[in-house]
Amino acid sequence: MSVTAPAGFAAAGVTAGLKKSGGLDLAVVHNLGPLTSAASVFTRNRCKANPVLWSEQVMRGGRVKAIVLNSGGANCYTGTIGFQTTHATAEAIADRLEISAGEVLVCSTGLIGEQLDLGKITAGVWDATLALQSAAATSDAAGLAAAQAIMTTDTTPKQTLLTSTAGWTIGGMAKGAGMLAPGLATMLVVLTTDAVLDSEQLDVALREATRVTFDRLDSDGCMSTNDTVSLLGSGASGVAADLPEFTDALIAICQDLTLQLQADAEGSGHDVAITVRNAATEDDAVNVARAVSRSNLFKTAIFGNDPNWGRVLAAVGTTDAAFDPYGIDVAINDVQVCTAGEPDQPRELVDLTPRSVTVLIDLHEGTETGTIWTNDLTHEYVEENSAYSS
Amino acid sequence: MSVTAPAGFAAAGVTAGLKKSGGLDLAVVHNLGPLTSAASVFTRNRCKANPVLWSEQVMRGGRVKAIVLNSGGANCYTGTIGFQTTHATAEAIADRLEISAGEVLVCSTGLIGEQLDLGKITAGVWDATLALQSAAATSDAAGLAAAQAIMTTDTTPKQTLLTSTAGWTIGGMAKGAGMLAPGLATMLVVLTTDAVLDSEQLDVALREATRVTFDRLDSDGCMSTNDTVSLLGSGASGVAADLPEFTDALIAICQDLTLQLQADAEGSGHDVAITVRNAATEDDAVNVARAVSRSNLFKTAIFGNDPNWGRVLAAVGTTDAAFDPYGIDVAINDVQVCTAGEPDQPRELVDLTPRSVTVLIDLHEGTETGTIWTNDLTHEYVEENSAYSS
Repeated sequence: MSVTAPAGFAAAGVTAGLKKSGGLDLAVVHNLGPLTSAASVFTRNRCKANPVLWSEQVMRGGRVKAIVLNSGGANCYTGTIGFQTTHATAEAIADRLEISAGEVLVCSTGLIGEQLDLGKITAGVWDATLALQSAAATSDAAGLAAAQAIMTTDTTPKQTLLTSTAGWTIGGMAKGAGMLAPGLATMLVVLTTDAVLDSEQLDVALREATRVTFDRLDSDGCMSTNDTVSLLGSGASGVAADLPEFTDALIAICQDLTLQLQADAEGSGHDVAITVRNAATEDDAVNVARAVSRSNLFKTAIFGNDPNWGRVLAAVGTTDAAFDPYGIDVAINDVQVCTAGEPDQPRELVDLTPRSVTVLIDLHEGTETGTIWTNDLTHEYVEENSAYSS
Repeated sequence: MSVTAPAGFAAAGVTAGLKKSGGLDLAVVHNLGPLTSAASVFTRNRCKANPVLWSEQVMRGGRVKAIVLNSGGANCYTGTIGFQTTHATAEAIADRLEISAGEVLVCSTGLIGEQLDLGKITAGVWDATLALQSAAATSDAAGLAAAQAIMTTDTTPKQTLLTSTAGWTIGGMAKGAGMLAPGLATMLVVLTTDAVLDSEQLDVALREATRVTFDRLDSDGCMSTNDTVSLLGSGASGVAADLPEFTDALIAICQDLTLQLQADAEGSGHDVAITVRNAATEDDAVNVARAVSRSNLFKTAIFGNDPNWGRVLAAVGTTDAAFDPYGIDVAINDVQVCTAGEPDQPRELVDLTPRSVTVLIDLHEGTETGTIWTNDLTHEYVEENSAYSS
């Protein structure tokens, strides 16, 4: 049930002292091979954190033997010193695992604009790599410790697992409960597989999977500077995977983690799936659903258990998708509250007390469908995010 | 200090019974001439309310003798019946004032998706037009009643006045405290002037003024279905205004109302002016400032009096403006917290207790400047907007 489930991976999670809470805050995932295949998707934010700048360089080499992740600091807008910290972290891992620093991905998460304590990180790397040498490093417990070490405001660790009848396995862990958004915001994900696939194949599968899963999670519209989703391949199963089958499995894995992230979004009271159907294009469907997911008025209405469909249509109207304002239907939790842009069933029939909410928007323009997963805007969201740095 | 201040205008505000509160809810402004010049700017939302659809048709005629505005219902997504209500409202005004319905603008504000009670509106029109016949209809008190009648969640009526030494005057009133946004969201504004200018001249001046004022107020990023800003010209001063001078005065008037709207934004604790300077283009400056104004993480930080400049830069990074991430300076309330993308002065030096907050972002790419006015994201915002329809 973790990154250590596929053959050929060891993991560790330790306390380096970066988090004020004193909890686990440094994780390492070690690819034991025989392959060192890897693919990564990074934030589309143009203001990228130092670990992202570093990891982009590593990915040009196309070979990854380890990934080190820390919570307790994003190492973003920390300039030359911050980049040196990232570099030194990779070097410390490389030194201890007897690999090249150019084969080590680095991820960081936490507050922006403050330097990480390199001394603490170096000590943490020592402890983590020591743990990696024990037989327990390939256990579920080791994977869980790694998943716990990357948590920030997450309330639960997030892990997933899928085993194919073909004989290969995919495992994964994720963190993120804050700035979830189109650029995969403040989300760190590590996926591991023992399928025999090269880096190029992993890249194809990963881009297709993130496009329809993490990229469609838009909790609060904010795009992070640190998001990284990495997929490491050990090839240790000895089974060459069929790429379409592997991609489908990876989509399922990423979908599972996406919904775990949504369920743990900061201060959320509702998980909202906004589906647009019968759009002229898939882009139209996604853009319309995303516009609704970003309307603070819609999100506060859902918080208040108010099926205010006017706010749905007002958000639809801000897009350039193909539609006739008087040709749109809206259903909330299966109650058709609006047909052809006019009131239909009474809004009182909509029960918004369950955590799960569905909004279905029918544009009647084509045959394409798209879903965005979002959350409501709550007092707890305001509270958590106004106190984040304190 | 109101729409009745310029010569040639009468106004009324009455209780039609549309608001549950029983307060004033129907306003009429009557242009007594001799001119019937007019210009309007409407929401850019593609889902337009019935009064907007009607008023757009009226403006094609280029002549406006009266404008009728109601609170207590937006008359949006109310279909054919809703449009007939708007039409009948204009007809009722026209009948009583002995003008053409095609010379009557209609504005509505309130909840979307519910029909207005035409019987109440017709009765309200009768009362309002009766009031217009009294000598007091050109008084400040009449203007104030009109300004009060268009309030929804506003806590104060919003009025303004400017008299030129050339001998003409501009007056105005506005409502809006909710969905203030780029499309001039849920904002109704009536401006009056006795300057001698034709409709084409008023249109040039109004578009220039709204572009740099109302269009740059972005309280919560949501775009309304009903926004309308109208400028009526009576020509009653007999003074032909110099168009550039008039435009400057109109910008000042619109700026005054913009800041009044910002100060009364729903549940806000801070008025935030985000200025981007040394941008390559004015569009870059405005787009960067708007991206920051729409970051819920930035807005909650300001609510918490937390000068979290990392969230400013993270929002800047989502735009396609010309900048180098490590070439950006940020100052909050005059404290330079970030220089060239790295920490500068300690964030503890920033005092965020005053209501007024300034964020200054220097892109070091050119010479253009732009400001967006926004508010923080507070518990009160969540509360007011989750309970709006109840």
